[in-house]
Amino acid sequence: MKLNSDLGESFGIWQLGQDDKLMPHIDMANIACGFHAGDAHVINQTLLLAKQYKTEVGAHPSYPDKLGFGRRSMLCSKQEIIELIHYQVAALDGMAKNQGINITYVKPHGALYNDMMSDDTVCDAIFEAISSYHSPLKLMLLATPKQQSYREKAKASGIELIFEAFSDRRYTESGYLMSRKDPQALLNKNEIIQQAKSLIDSGVVICDSGAKISIQADSLCVHGDNEQAINVIKELRRLCHN
Amino acid sequence: MKLNSDLGESFGIWQLGQDDKLMPHIDMANIACGFHAGDAHVINQTLLLAKQYKTEVGAHPSYPDKLGFGRRSMLCSKQEIIELIHYQVAALDGMAKNQGINITYVKPHGALYNDMMSDDTVCDAIFEAISSYHSPLKLMLLATPKQQSYREKAKASGIELIFEAFSDRRYTESGYLMSRKDPQALLNKNEIIQQAKSLIDSGVVICDSGAKISIQADSLCVHGDNEQAINVIKELRRLCHN
Amino acid sequence: MKLNSDLGESFGIWQLGQDDKLMPHIDMANIACGFHAGDAHVINQTLLLAKQYKTEVGAHPSYPDKLGFGRRSMLCSKQEIIELIHYQVAALDGMAKNQGINITYVKPHGALYNDMMSDDTVCDAIFEAISSYHSPLKLMLLATPKQQSYREKAKASGIELIFEAFSDRRYTESGYLMSRKDPQALLNKNEIIQQAKSLIDSGVVICDSGAKISIQADSLCVHGDNEQAINVIKELRRLCHN
Amino acid sequence: MKLNSDLGESFGIWQLGQDDKLMPHIDMANIACGFHAGDAHVINQTLLLAKQYKTEVGAHPSYPDKLGFGRRSMLCSKQEIIELIHYQVAALDGMAKNQGINITYVKPHGALYNDMMSDDTVCDAIFEAISSYHSPLKLMLLATPKQQSYREKAKASGIELIFEAFSDRRYTESGYLMSRKDPQALLNKNEIIQQAKSLIDSGVVICDSGAKISIQADSLCVHGDNEQAINVIKELRRLCHN
Repeated sequence: MKLNSDLGESFGIWQLGQDDKLMPHIDMANIACGFHAGDAHVINQTLLLAKQYKTEVGAHPSYPDKLGFGRRSMLCSKQEIIELIHYQVAALDGMAKNQGINITYVKPHGALYNDMMSDDTVCDAIFEAISSYHSPLKLMLLATPKQQSYREKAKASGIELIFEAFSDRRYTESGYLMSRKDPQALLNKNEIIQQAKSLIDSGVVICDSGAKISIQADSLCVHGDNEQAINVIKELRRLCHN
Repeated sequence: MKLNSDLGESFGIWQLGQDDKLMPHIDMANIACGFHAGDAHVINQTLLLAKQYKTEVGAHPSYPDKLGFGRRSMLCSKQEIIELIHYQVAALDGMAKNQGINITYVKPHGALYNDMMSDDTVCDAIFEAISSYHSPLKLMLLATPKQQSYREKAKASGIELIFEAFSDRRYTESGYLMSRKDPQALLNKNEIIQQAKSLIDSGVVICDSGAKISIQADSLCVHGDNEQAINVIKELRRLCHN
Repeated sequence: MKLNSDLGESFGIWQLGQDDKLMPHIDMANIACGFHAGDAHVINQTLLLAKQYKTEVGAHPSYPDKLGFGRRSMLCSKQEIIELIHYQVAALDGMAKNQGINITYVKPHGALYNDMMSDDTVCDAIFEAISSYHSPLKLMLLATPKQQSYREKAKASGIELIFEAFSDRRYTESGYLMSRKDPQALLNKNEIIQQAKSLIDSGVVICDSGAKISIQADSLCVHGDNEQAINVIKELRRLCHN
Repeated sequence: MKLNSDLGESFGIWQLGQDDKLMPHIDMANIACGFHAGDAHVINQTLLLAKQYKTEVGAHPSYPDKLGFGRRSMLCSKQEIIELIHYQVAALDGMAKNQGINITYVKPHGALYNDMMSDDTVCDAIFEAISSYHSPLKLMLLATPKQQSYREKAKASGIELIFEAFSDRRYTESGYLMSRKDPQALLNKNEIIQQAKSLIDSGVVICDSGAKISIQADSLCVHGDNEQAINVIKELRRLCHN
């Protein structure tokens, strides 16, 4: 079980996150590509940090919406989505190669990620974007009860998947994440550790109703916004690497 | 002697140029990378056109200024210039590879091009951007009386140069282009053909004072904004390929 | 019956439309405010043109999406919509006042317009944006069978409405415009004149099924992209002013 | 002597500064207008804060360069500068009026400010932008030994000036600020208080050479990036209001 996290989300003068403190403790860095966050300098700095800690690097492309941090769904055509992913992935890919790094996967960001999980056109566009990219990249998506159908789709597209789960978010019985608007959506530290253990050991999550649901994840998505969160991540890493 | 031209300068709904009419008649397409013009879709369409006509492709990066079409000088640091070139070149490079195309050179656009020819810091930044790119790319710049010093600089940086000349612009005795603000700056059709012939046959240009100056060019930069301009380009091509 | 048209949709180097040919023949100019098209210079030029022809001026605000020309729906919160309208309207309003012009209305653009007509949250946001603007502005929206409910809503908000109809678009029996994707969506010149006459004389449109529907419009939206379209607009103007 | 400070410099998700802590202790808020920082929401929030503390509000327009935070000089024409100022000032002005606030002055930001102080074309453009704005606005600029020439220029343009000085920056004998690149450029807390006192009481600054120079300032520019800086500002305010 690997830990992945979103990095490189500063922009120009504006700092976001604490990438230097987070990078040492994660396995996979999802790096913003300049459409919702990041710029050429931020990308470069984040790549150097990933190189220093030998962190695997993936592209974190988004709808073109810096003002909304890529969190607002935009009604794009399939072709638009393919091309905006190609542009962003290519920019990061080439800058990574300049540092001797090969990126290995793509994780869509924010609204693009959510739309991928809920809208077939968006999902198809993303699969096609990755399968038509000039070098093989995996796709990171949410581990849900529909994993099998994604696996079949991926097989047909000739791409490999990385399923991620969240240890800090509560799941509903449907196998999806509870909306952030729900006051119960975020887990406390103990719950995070419990949920991570359960995901790692048995691929099971206890959802809001108390029922057990099966979640087969390859990676846990973690957020390291403050010192306490970093400490939780260190604990999670120990769990993962045991 | 090859013909090069700037293409892919539309943006979103806004069309600029007539790339489909121009592409068949040029040897090298300088494709905008999204900072002064172009977007993921425009880039892709322009690449498909280059592929169709087997046109060599180069990146045409710019200062980040779509509103000013990259024509306003921006006081950027060396590091900023290196990184903004890397980002743009990488984006185009990866999208080109998706179409089976390898880009071969970089020609800075507009104010970035002018600053390269007049400001050592900008010039150094561009040389370093190209020499630190992960795959070899040539740099296209203006053939001037200082060609030898650029050649030495390029040798030290391990990069190859492409010198371009203009057949439609009048030169001053200094070996540089007359400012566009001067009413004599642009040549008429006959003058264009004469200047091209002279550049191709003997590497010589008759400048505004009537004096002959030596210009050793590998490529002619052409503009194909209308039907008449395209016709001139067809003639130039015949001259080049004789 | 007044003619309104979208103007000021150039951006930087990129020209769109032929505002100078269109402006003399319309009554109301919907001027882009810089979010989907337009910039400070384009706005200023368009205002000068409106002043020259004494054309009434309205703000034409949009989602913040220049790349997509404001045609892609963006999932914005009510507060986001209010604020992005305030910013755009204020920018145009102040620049208009610099030219001695008072803007009199707001017509949302593209996806924002469509969302206003189909999504209550967006519609509420727009009503609130206008009623909380510091000086009175009318709202231009589509004349549909629901006109009465809009009138009530407007009365409650203390704002005035301008209902517009389209003489160049076919209506469905529901009283809405047929989708542009339908090959029957656009009317030919004779049909345009007929539909305009019918709208002006009797507030009636013959829709795609042949049925007559009632459309009470204060203004006709016209498009003047080419010479022929301008000629149609001249004829429409004669009809309106008879 | 009034205290002025730059506020509203957050953008989208990215926070900058601590406007809520700073606003209570200053007299004049220079609010970013969306070109180097700020957006419709940030502007609105900052206006509400200014209203709450009855702080005078000025527009803080910039070159269009969010990535570079308006700190990179851009070679714009006079007309471009006039129009970009009009757009930004108008946007803030209208949004301020929505909150019952009348903005009273303009302080150019970053590179635009520096270019105003060193380049006559830029300075002329800014004077013209303000004198052609539809309602009277003062211009805030740096108090230098050339104050008299600015006063004459302002009189000719019919605009009023506000001269500002810096209590936290060392001056050179020329009467200008020492470059930030110089390690001596920033004053410590005691020096700040001393320089402020001297500016308030006698319009004199002791510059780097130890010489006294005369600086007639109407306002002190202060920065409140952290708790300590806020404390200094509180002291400065006591000095100003004595």
